[in-house]
Amino acid sequence: MTINVGVIGVGMIGQDHIRRLTHVLSGARVSAVTDVDIDRAKSVATGLPAAKALQTGAELVTDSEVDAVVVASWGPTHEEYVLACIEAGKQVFCEKPLATTREACERIVDAEVAAGKRLVMVGFMRRYDDGYLAMKETIESGGIGTPLMFHSAHRNPAVPPHYVNDMIINDTCVHDVDVARWLLDDEIVAARVLVPRHSSLAGDHLTDPIMFVFETARGALVDVEASVNIQYGYDIRGEVVGERGTVALADSNRAVLRSDRRWSGGVPEDWRERFLRAYDVELQEWIDAAAAGRSTGPSSWDGYAATVVCDAGVAAMNNGGERVVLSLREQPDLYKPTAGAGPTVE
Amino acid sequence: MTINVGVIGVGMIGQDHIRRLTHVLSGARVSAVTDVDIDRAKSVATGLPAAKALQTGAELVTDSEVDAVVVASWGPTHEEYVLACIEAGKQVFCEKPLATTREACERIVDAEVAAGKRLVMVGFMRRYDDGYLAMKETIESGGIGTPLMFHSAHRNPAVPPHYVNDMIINDTCVHDVDVARWLLDDEIVAARVLVPRHSSLAGDHLTDPIMFVFETARGALVDVEASVNIQYGYDIRGEVVGERGTVALADSNRAVLRSDRRWSGGVPEDWRERFLRAYDVELQEWIDAAAAGRSTGPSSWDGYAATVVCDAGVAAMNNGGERVVLSLREQPDLYKPTAGAGPTVE
Amino acid sequence: MTINVGVIGVGMIGQDHIRRLTHVLSGARVSAVTDVDIDRAKSVATGLPAAKALQTGAELVTDSEVDAVVVASWGPTHEEYVLACIEAGKQVFCEKPLATTREACERIVDAEVAAGKRLVMVGFMRRYDDGYLAMKETIESGGIGTPLMFHSAHRNPAVPPHYVNDMIINDTCVHDVDVARWLLDDEIVAARVLVPRHSSLAGDHLTDPIMFVFETARGALVDVEASVNIQYGYDIRGEVVGERGTVALADSNRAVLRSDRRWSGGVPEDWRERFLRAYDVELQEWIDAAAAGRSTGPSSWDGYAATVVCDAGVAAMNNGGERVVLSLREQPDLYKPTAGAGPTVE
Amino acid sequence: MTINVGVIGVGMIGQDHIRRLTHVLSGARVSAVTDVDIDRAKSVATGLPAAKALQTGAELVTDSEVDAVVVASWGPTHEEYVLACIEAGKQVFCEKPLATTREACERIVDAEVAAGKRLVMVGFMRRYDDGYLAMKETIESGGIGTPLMFHSAHRNPAVPPHYVNDMIINDTCVHDVDVARWLLDDEIVAARVLVPRHSSLAGDHLTDPIMFVFETARGALVDVEASVNIQYGYDIRGEVVGERGTVALADSNRAVLRSDRRWSGGVPEDWRERFLRAYDVELQEWIDAAAAGRSTGPSSWDGYAATVVCDAGVAAMNNGGERVVLSLREQPDLYKPTAGAGPTVE
Repeated sequence: MTINVGVIGVGMIGQDHIRRLTHVLSGARVSAVTDVDIDRAKSVATGLPAAKALQTGAELVTDSEVDAVVVASWGPTHEEYVLACIEAGKQVFCEKPLATTREACERIVDAEVAAGKRLVMVGFMRRYDDGYLAMKETIESGGIGTPLMFHSAHRNPAVPPHYVNDMIINDTCVHDVDVARWLLDDEIVAARVLVPRHSSLAGDHLTDPIMFVFETARGALVDVEASVNIQYGYDIRGEVVGERGTVALADSNRAVLRSDRRWSGGVPEDWRERFLRAYDVELQEWIDAAAAGRSTGPSSWDGYAATVVCDAGVAAMNNGGERVVLSLREQPDLYKPTAGAGPTVE
Repeated sequence: MTINVGVIGVGMIGQDHIRRLTHVLSGARVSAVTDVDIDRAKSVATGLPAAKALQTGAELVTDSEVDAVVVASWGPTHEEYVLACIEAGKQVFCEKPLATTREACERIVDAEVAAGKRLVMVGFMRRYDDGYLAMKETIESGGIGTPLMFHSAHRNPAVPPHYVNDMIINDTCVHDVDVARWLLDDEIVAARVLVPRHSSLAGDHLTDPIMFVFETARGALVDVEASVNIQYGYDIRGEVVGERGTVALADSNRAVLRSDRRWSGGVPEDWRERFLRAYDVELQEWIDAAAAGRSTGPSSWDGYAATVVCDAGVAAMNNGGERVVLSLREQPDLYKPTAGAGPTVE
Repeated sequence: MTINVGVIGVGMIGQDHIRRLTHVLSGARVSAVTDVDIDRAKSVATGLPAAKALQTGAELVTDSEVDAVVVASWGPTHEEYVLACIEAGKQVFCEKPLATTREACERIVDAEVAAGKRLVMVGFMRRYDDGYLAMKETIESGGIGTPLMFHSAHRNPAVPPHYVNDMIINDTCVHDVDVARWLLDDEIVAARVLVPRHSSLAGDHLTDPIMFVFETARGALVDVEASVNIQYGYDIRGEVVGERGTVALADSNRAVLRSDRRWSGGVPEDWRERFLRAYDVELQEWIDAAAAGRSTGPSSWDGYAATVVCDAGVAAMNNGGERVVLSLREQPDLYKPTAGAGPTVE
Repeated sequence: MTINVGVIGVGMIGQDHIRRLTHVLSGARVSAVTDVDIDRAKSVATGLPAAKALQTGAELVTDSEVDAVVVASWGPTHEEYVLACIEAGKQVFCEKPLATTREACERIVDAEVAAGKRLVMVGFMRRYDDGYLAMKETIESGGIGTPLMFHSAHRNPAVPPHYVNDMIINDTCVHDVDVARWLLDDEIVAARVLVPRHSSLAGDHLTDPIMFVFETARGALVDVEASVNIQYGYDIRGEVVGERGTVALADSNRAVLRSDRRWSGGVPEDWRERFLRAYDVELQEWIDAAAAGRSTGPSSWDGYAATVVCDAGVAAMNNGGERVVLSLREQPDLYKPTAGAGPTVE
């Protein structure tokens, strides 16, 4: 029952998924790896019990010893590999973004629809976080009434030098976009970006912080504070406001210290620490589904929708706060909600 | 050292201040009352140790047994009474709003400037709340770096039948406007209102909830969620986001109950419960200042600024999210910050 | 309706009550003061609007310009002054302890019973704290079922040089004793002291920390951790465990700071900060009751019971953990529960 | 690198470990099972990919297709199986208790010492819980100074009909005993049990709740409240009090709900929910160590010490609160602290 997984891209994220597949999760082994840097791929393969390094992603996807594929390469290459997996009829776990343009995402959706079955899962790991799952559960149980607003905050202590301006939308807020769509069970139809005073701790080339505001088809309003140089920690906040109550992520906390005139708890250092467990749960669910020949989790449609919303966000970022209307193509039946469409919420 | 206070308007708020002056606070006695309903004024006076009922506010303000005045009458009458107090050279505590139009506020400012001394304190009680004082203290100590955003939420379980649409700005958000100006020590220069889906629990004539967004002169962005029919309680939330940290109101809590699979704490029922203590501290500070011939607390300028911002908010409420620019007149020297301009923050 | 209050003892606590009576509370004025240091009494009187300094407590109690008395002198003198007040038929607010020996307390109880009315209130201010009131309210509403245990912690950052060993029971835990009796509505019948490792930050002459354990007549078990040199702050914790739930004091908090990888809230510096509001509420209730000729709050019986329990605690402190049985005399009818016997819990 | 694990005992716990080994964790497969009910063993084996059912534990331990053993049978059988594993030189994960008598534990220790290497890990899963790990980390970093006390509470909503009186010590408090030894890095030398009023919701045959108090060699005092019919949930509390601060388990919480005048979070339903993750981490660590030929985690010595302390606790439970002194044999060098002796705390 162990599936053979090929991994495309063995940079930081790819190696982390390889570690997970090899040492943490059940039911999978890494059988092949590839990378734009073939020497790096060879080096990684050498350290694994039973993996070979292949020259190209295309070769890996069609390899007979690869049952399913993890795509963790550079974003612009995702389309090619995901399409190849669909053509090969193999389940693929693709790190976000699904693809970097709306058109590329549509080509993936088209191919998957033509294939007649879901083969793609996109790596929106927040859907597997205990806190968001508890929020979803509360909303769906009717505990707060109809949701009307979602306040989200996405705070990074700092960003690396290669972080360019659009990334605050495409790499940072994209997670808030997906989790908003999922929590509210609704599509986004318009977006704005409001820009406060620039943080003196952010590079001059960055618009930081921002407030990314969007509206859903049923009229919920979502505001996302993105502060990517806030120093104090990696802090993800969220509260959905309903007609008769609200539900919010709790403070991350393991233990409460009392010392030096304060009681206090820790804030995570980075997304790895904060979402460590969600990544594990996410990939295990994918393995289990792939082994059973099922699809699960965030779909190509979710990847497509997130990309379209982020495109609107980037367009809105420098227009002085104007509302940007966006629209999605009609949703294929393949992506209509079914029991297997997301993590089970008990 | 006991000062004689005349109270104009003995409705719910007026009677609550009379109770406070008579039974809770130190250094004041109610010597005269008046009301548009003179019988009600007489009835209230009868229940007090040493108060007379007078026919008009004008009469009360000039009465020789009145050292200082509390104005708690209907908003549109505030201008007349406050101006009369300034003319009489008597300290006046005026419930918000200072006056209902920008022009009326300006006339008060002009009169006070002409009088050459501050005589007016406006009843923005949040500045005396322990939670907001701790936030202010933290910000001013540099604990979060330069403030960039302020997220505020103002939630009422329900509103009374006479609550009309503009009141969500003029009566509800006005407190968030004042506390934002005070916390950020900055003036507001533009406003927008974003309107999500209507709460089915709010009357059809109300725009509820709203997100009132405004910008300060130094570029801080403030978002205020106002939800005035949210059922679950009276809940005031606030978080100021700085360059290197944030500071937020804590959950109101006195005791934590563990029962029935939950740990939980209480949410206040209404603003009286939530700000009970702030009202006491506020009015005691005014009494002490009046007895000492000093002025204190939120000034006519603060009342004027709040009214101008709320005017912009009302204009913005139905314009589809457009930004409304606003401007204040030049600030007279009388209102420039001095040691006595607000509650002391240690 | 303003009552004239005489204050015996103008040290730190006495001066704090004078400040409260003069500048914070309603319905009282300080008309006379006395002190073992008569010059200090004169100096304090000079700073007050209408107070005279008297040579002795006896003189003060019988002075015609004194309606009611606050006793804030050294513990061993309390008996004499309280008895004098009872003889004069004047209401007296006596700081804890009521008296320093069981026999002295009994003489006070006898005198009050002979007088046929309650005249004494003992300064156990915790009964007026919002947190404890909420706990009491929850217990009495049946929210946790029958109470079975009470875990209490009493932590001081440090103690002054004059703090001798018995004070950890008589001055520190005495508050936990009273609040346990009040929360559980029960008398204490046996006590033990368990002694862990000595804190290296406590003086060698002190037994610190200790765990003071006692049992009530109905079988509830109370454990009090007293740590009086714990450095980090003044922290009072309490949780009552019932048959189907628990209720605990919440963390003191006004605002939550996020900075430097922590979210945190403040711990009070000392008992003044922690119980500031409770002291105000307590003394206002006494003034109101005294003005109305009623008695209120913790009674002589409560003072007597606390002293008897502390005597047992001191005896138990060095006996290696043996159980010390204690017994109270029969409770006079005067102290049987009535509507006016404590702070009203709504 | 996959190890073959044999499981002895396929009741509730055994089946849960089988699920974990098969579907959750990495690096192990279940190759053989046995049970006192051989039909149940056969039924379980049938549902697994590659497991056989064996007639006896002895057969399973020596089976050539079994690399390592999980013992999850009835407590009194543990000694036999653990000794067999030691004799066979195979790593064994034994659910608590290591054995049901002090003498049996000593025989295991003797055998392991004679074997010259650690082969036994005892299932004290709390050492793998995030909360306790954070507490340990804080203590070891010096964040609270020398630990002086540990307050623990162990609350179960209810217990099953077969739960007899000694189980509140042997099955419930045994976890608090182990975690106290681990957190404080100290041995226990004396114990007492204080018994409050009986909960009317507990069976008459049970002593519930109790306060189990014990002392460590270095003088720390530990108090464990065990309330095993408290209805409201499964709630594990803990706070270590040091010389200059304290560290406590945080409230379990995933999301905070605001509704119906309360903010609230969930309390777990049972130990499975509360320690789900700790069980996973614990067993993965054992698999990894077993695969590498290393031992890890709580040792036979820890199992022995816990049994000796629980024996003293049972003896103390009905002696009216007397102190029971206990002593351990000299600790063999094999169990002296080394880098591999417990979960790594970073």
